[in-house]
Amino acid sequence: MEFVTLIAMLALIQYLAFGLLVGRARTRFGVQAPATSGHPEFERYFRAHYNTLEQLIIFLPAIFAGGYFGHSLIAVAAGAVFLVGRSLYFRTYIKDPATRGPGMMLSFAANLVLIANAFIGAMMQAF
Amino acid sequence: MEFVTLIAMLALIQYLAFGLLVGRARTRFGVQAPATSGHPEFERYFRAHYNTLEQLIIFLPAIFAGGYFGHSLIAVAAGAVFLVGRSLYFRTYIKDPATRGPGMMLSFAANLVLIANAFIGAMMQAF
Amino acid sequence: MEFVTLIAMLALIQYLAFGLLVGRARTRFGVQAPATSGHPEFERYFRAHYNTLEQLIIFLPAIFAGGYFGHSLIAVAAGAVFLVGRSLYFRTYIKDPATRGPGMMLSFAANLVLIANAFIGAMMQAF
Repeated sequence: MEFVTLIAMLALIQYLAFGLLVGRARTRFGVQAPATSGHPEFERYFRAHYNTLEQLIIFLPAIFAGGYFGHSLIAVAAGAVFLVGRSLYFRTYIKDPATRGPGMMLSFAANLVLIANAFIGAMMQAF
Repeated sequence: MEFVTLIAMLALIQYLAFGLLVGRARTRFGVQAPATSGHPEFERYFRAHYNTLEQLIIFLPAIFAGGYFGHSLIAVAAGAVFLVGRSLYFRTYIKDPATRGPGMMLSFAANLVLIANAFIGAMMQAF
Repeated sequence: MEFVTLIAMLALIQYLAFGLLVGRARTRFGVQAPATSGHPEFERYFRAHYNTLEQLIIFLPAIFAGGYFGHSLIAVAAGAVFLVGRSLYFRTYIKDPATRGPGMMLSFAANLVLIANAFIGAMMQAF
């Protein structure tokens, strides 16, 4: 579980870094809180960050549950793919939202593997 | 914990399915990223998905903590109620946001039970 | 882990209370679902609640992982600081978004401590 935890903490640090970039974009593009729209470039940062939140709610429980009940090597490997996918996603979304596909697919696929790993592992323990 | 984990993974799969429906609605109603508004029907899908995210942040730690420190049978039962409530919530929100009450209440009540189960269980271990 | 769990459950109850205040603000300022904007005062409630969600996705895994692999006393203390910071954040955001800084900083600092505690603890177990 140590390596699973390290990957999970790296994902939190990555997400935190995205959050800081959103804060900087808020100042740079002059979007005052509580507004979350008003400048298309700011909206890209905002949405790329939020989409990462949407994915982390799957990623975090699935990587820990899979590290415990499933194969921890699968959990660590899929976790690393998730990190790479999210980094690609964020950079491509900022440049051009239309190119965000590959990064999205990579982290989405990683999440599917993480869920399957946890689900099958828990199934085998249960029955 | 195996059954708690299975219920938690089912909740992630349900949430993932909601996310795919949002993606389909994006195409169908012509709402281009990064926009999250512009078509009232799309906004229903988007908000129903996000409200599920808002609830999962309670559901996931509470079901695991309650499965560990509280009664795991309560955790599993309340978890199943949550799944039913969310399914109802999503379908009613899409049809007519004004009818989303019962599904919302069902999953909200399930979350209250899950928190109480974990809280009381941890209290009894601590003192 | 009992005290870590109690702090985590208190954070969920706090977040739940914020959610109820958003629901009340929806009625009070006449913002009908699925809209999430339209009245600046409602938007403050909405954003303060959502920012708490954004922070909880870090807080929850980090406090549990740090309670397990790191020092649980650090996890409990930083968790308590997070609760105070979030309470301050919510109240100041509602009054005037420009004054939300100190509350945000307090909970942000708590999250950094929680991540470091978990990361260093897992590192020391792994190597």
